[in-house]
Amino acid sequence: MIGRTHGVHAEPMTFGLKLALWYAELQRDLDRVLRARAVVSVGKVSGAVGTFAHLDPAIEARVCERLGLEPASVSSQVIQRDRHAELLSALAITAASLEKFALEIRGLQKTEIGEVEEPFGKGQKGSSAMPHKRNPIGSEQIVGLARLIRANAMAALENVALWHERDISHSSVERVILPDSFIALDHMLRRFTRIVRGMVVYPDRMLENLARSRGVVFSGTVLLELARRGVSREQAYEWVQRNAMRAHHEKRDFKPLLLADPDVMNVLKPAEVEKAFSLDDQLRNVDQVMNRVFSGVTAMASA
Amino acid sequence: MIGRTHGVHAEPMTFGLKLALWYAELQRDLDRVLRARAVVSVGKVSGAVGTFAHLDPAIEARVCERLGLEPASVSSQVIQRDRHAELLSALAITAASLEKFALEIRGLQKTEIGEVEEPFGKGQKGSSAMPHKRNPIGSEQIVGLARLIRANAMAALENVALWHERDISHSSVERVILPDSFIALDHMLRRFTRIVRGMVVYPDRMLENLARSRGVVFSGTVLLELARRGVSREQAYEWVQRNAMRAHHEKRDFKPLLLADPDVMNVLKPAEVEKAFSLDDQLRNVDQVMNRVFSGVTAMASA
Amino acid sequence: MIGRTHGVHAEPMTFGLKLALWYAELQRDLDRVLRARAVVSVGKVSGAVGTFAHLDPAIEARVCERLGLEPASVSSQVIQRDRHAELLSALAITAASLEKFALEIRGLQKTEIGEVEEPFGKGQKGSSAMPHKRNPIGSEQIVGLARLIRANAMAALENVALWHERDISHSSVERVILPDSFIALDHMLRRFTRIVRGMVVYPDRMLENLARSRGVVFSGTVLLELARRGVSREQAYEWVQRNAMRAHHEKRDFKPLLLADPDVMNVLKPAEVEKAFSLDDQLRNVDQVMNRVFSGVTAMASA
Amino acid sequence: MIGRTHGVHAEPMTFGLKLALWYAELQRDLDRVLRARAVVSVGKVSGAVGTFAHLDPAIEARVCERLGLEPASVSSQVIQRDRHAELLSALAITAASLEKFALEIRGLQKTEIGEVEEPFGKGQKGSSAMPHKRNPIGSEQIVGLARLIRANAMAALENVALWHERDISHSSVERVILPDSFIALDHMLRRFTRIVRGMVVYPDRMLENLARSRGVVFSGTVLLELARRGVSREQAYEWVQRNAMRAHHEKRDFKPLLLADPDVMNVLKPAEVEKAFSLDDQLRNVDQVMNRVFSGVTAMASA
Repeated sequence: MIGRTHGVHAEPMTFGLKLALWYAELQRDLDRVLRARAVVSVGKVSGAVGTFAHLDPAIEARVCERLGLEPASVSSQVIQRDRHAELLSALAITAASLEKFALEIRGLQKTEIGEVEEPFGKGQKGSSAMPHKRNPIGSEQIVGLARLIRANAMAALENVALWHERDISHSSVERVILPDSFIALDHMLRRFTRIVRGMVVYPDRMLENLARSRGVVFSGTVLLELARRGVSREQAYEWVQRNAMRAHHEKRDFKPLLLADPDVMNVLKPAEVEKAFSLDDQLRNVDQVMNRVFSGVTAMASA
Repeated sequence: MIGRTHGVHAEPMTFGLKLALWYAELQRDLDRVLRARAVVSVGKVSGAVGTFAHLDPAIEARVCERLGLEPASVSSQVIQRDRHAELLSALAITAASLEKFALEIRGLQKTEIGEVEEPFGKGQKGSSAMPHKRNPIGSEQIVGLARLIRANAMAALENVALWHERDISHSSVERVILPDSFIALDHMLRRFTRIVRGMVVYPDRMLENLARSRGVVFSGTVLLELARRGVSREQAYEWVQRNAMRAHHEKRDFKPLLLADPDVMNVLKPAEVEKAFSLDDQLRNVDQVMNRVFSGVTAMASA
Repeated sequence: MIGRTHGVHAEPMTFGLKLALWYAELQRDLDRVLRARAVVSVGKVSGAVGTFAHLDPAIEARVCERLGLEPASVSSQVIQRDRHAELLSALAITAASLEKFALEIRGLQKTEIGEVEEPFGKGQKGSSAMPHKRNPIGSEQIVGLARLIRANAMAALENVALWHERDISHSSVERVILPDSFIALDHMLRRFTRIVRGMVVYPDRMLENLARSRGVVFSGTVLLELARRGVSREQAYEWVQRNAMRAHHEKRDFKPLLLADPDVMNVLKPAEVEKAFSLDDQLRNVDQVMNRVFSGVTAMASA
Repeated sequence: MIGRTHGVHAEPMTFGLKLALWYAELQRDLDRVLRARAVVSVGKVSGAVGTFAHLDPAIEARVCERLGLEPASVSSQVIQRDRHAELLSALAITAASLEKFALEIRGLQKTEIGEVEEPFGKGQKGSSAMPHKRNPIGSEQIVGLARLIRANAMAALENVALWHERDISHSSVERVILPDSFIALDHMLRRFTRIVRGMVVYPDRMLENLARSRGVVFSGTVLLELARRGVSREQAYEWVQRNAMRAHHEKRDFKPLLLADPDVMNVLKPAEVEKAFSLDDQLRNVDQVMNRVFSGVTAMASA
């Protein structure tokens, strides 16, 4: 399929590469959430201002052990809220990752692109007024909910600075942002899982879109081949852009234009031009990337 | 000194306990920043859409090695922005910790409290219009700058979701939030270090404030002593509150009131009442807390 | 051109309608900014705590008059920061409007859509590596800068609550957010103006895209025509969706499918089907909308 | 009472002046909320993309009239979200005002200050463990809830930029932030009203605190009197600060120190020094401020 930067066709890639990127990012998200869970898994039974005036640290140790918590090495009336801010930040970053993935699906489901679609039940109505529509409403919802969770993370950051041994200004905030963020993220994860499981991928459409630019997406390769043979980058750029623009405006294929361009053909042999347009050649290193991302996974699966 | 919750006198504590809490929190901040540094210390030379179409992963490996970076296992045109969001979150949480510490100093420097003051140079003017004033302007500035850095973290969270293989919407944002956040936090850390190094602590004032409530801050201890001897919590609460209110309204000492209360003295011996008002007894466990926080430090120092 | 909801083809509309929407929104933005300017255009010379202890309110009145400000009816050491929060909110909403308009251009410039492009200078390079690319980088930058300004608005909201007659925590924040927000929004407005002035609109591509769905975008009209003639909404929906799906999957035109559907043709006459596919009919009310938006403008221009 | 800047005694003021400031700010908040209500009180029945393809604008006009709404002059599938962002911003600024007022009460209720207290029911427990405590928990809750509402305003700003004629990403967000913000602000307003109605003000304590600095709070007046008689500001500053520091460190009254300072007494007569310490003189202009704030109110009340 075509890779897109700035929303514009860039160079060929594979759909699997997008998924590998998601997978690797979710591993980082998981790391962050697990670390944050450890950071908040502390307890304190140290009294009103943290002095253990009325009972011994040994009791705190026993209570925490029962609850599966570590005793906080020092506390005021409360566990310090930098811990909760880390937790909410980890949730907000995870939500932002899902937002990115959902945005990708929304982008690929635009009518003119049509490479991927959210699952769409047989009896499901796409739109109450427009029977032809299939809208990526699950992905849109995920994008929206990410805004909520990052707003909650903001409030968690404001909760860190309490007065002296605590004031209770954080409490009303946490009663909202903690359950709401977990519930929203849980929902986002479940919904996104369903979307990925059922998503419909259209390889034909991917190839069709790849072909839309009449070969111009290989212009970077041609540019490099020219440069490799000693043409200055500026000169090569001018030759390539000239033909790319012509392909665009005259709706003609880019390759034949190059093959007919005397400047270009003074430098490149026809076979070299052909090779610059080879998808197999462009994608020869993708397997290595997949191995880098999933090698640990394979190991785990075979264990 | 008195510990304060809700801004109101709670129970006795020590100033060292506040500092131990700061120390422990800064360790967590440091952990977060170091982890975030590792997370962003990755590089990519994988081409326009991450396929290595024009050069081999081996080159990426060599370039990254030279730069002291890890190659990202998979990338699009760019390194994914969840990494930068983690970095900005770590900076924002650290800034919020400093905000809390600075807020503590501001609280203790209020005229009526006067237990701690920011350093104040000999020739320094406290206020252009009011020569008597010594304002905690360093701490106030630190509180303000924390707002900036958490706002920047918010923008970093919005930067995660780019279109397809990248759009450049994150770039203008990062040109501001990355340098600004580092510069602001660096300044906050330097300024706060100067404040802590030079801060003036008034132990006499701490004892004076501790005595202001005429012993009422020991009411929790008395309550527990009564409960320990079989008085129902409700009953004990009523007896203690009754005397505490009288001490407050009649400006009399709490201990003699208790010693003259027949209900209380039916249960407690005079020596037991005396013990409930002992600072040494209240603070007997504080050393253990200090050891928990600083034991690793001592070990490091002796290594 | 086709109107899009959820990124998916909905119903025909005109490009002018999008611009009218932008125009109307910018009027509201302008209102908000002008009101906020009035709200912050106040002054105070009321002394250290707002009592006029050392000089008379008459002096304040004269100073403010010279500066083109209204005297604040009451002040502490400072003008209250709810005023500045309103200003920053007005800037942030305006930035969000520009973000929306820029997002529209980015969406329309996606390769497969290609209906609108940012101006692109003759000698300009679209991409250093890919000579064929024309990227909407101006619009992407505008989208990014909106994030900065709304983060600044957040910090302004935190600046409202100062201690007693003022603390100086707001100052370091305002030194950044006030100039930065104005500079960024000014840049966004100038850049967006240049983009709109020079933007390239492709009407042929609009019609081409409109035709992509083979008439299915008129399904809502057909649905209503059926319902108007007494077919239950559920029944009509099923008939229309059935043909729409067939058009989609078999790549056939929607209208002939309907004309061949006995259920549909039992209710509608062929001419009625034809009328449901008329662009002129669909867009008959658009001029009224344009008049509603621009009537005041015309009045002003003719004045 | 003493006015405080930076949390430090500044100059005398009155408690009424604080309330007048609150009153004036709430008028601005009310203005903002009413304007925002007008801005969101619009409707649209313009179809899927705003073209009125299936029904006439006249119907929209009638529907809106019934609902007490203005028809939006132009719309897409939805009413534009800059309107809702203005509404949420107005709510967030109002919440920040209440946060400021609540922070004032919290500051004045600190044990050492004790000038104002939230109402505290006869049978109410101040703290489950510490019977002597009276905590400003209502004000603390108000401070916390302001964080939530401003976070929601942030999400509303992110909701403005939807794709083309609408995407539905704003919907899940609005289902939370609209009801939550109204409910939280309504609660804050009701609770703050109860707090203000029942708040306990301690004028004796105000005078006691005013006297704590042994007259040093009048140093600004002395400084101005010296300057008025031709002493350079630097010189006067040095003389005044010298005596202020002595008063502070030796716990002596400031006035006698001045009266015994030959430099000062070379310039000022004893009666002039006395006048500089007059509360009546300092507060002579406060009534004018009250009139400025409440004159419209009186007019309304007498109408």
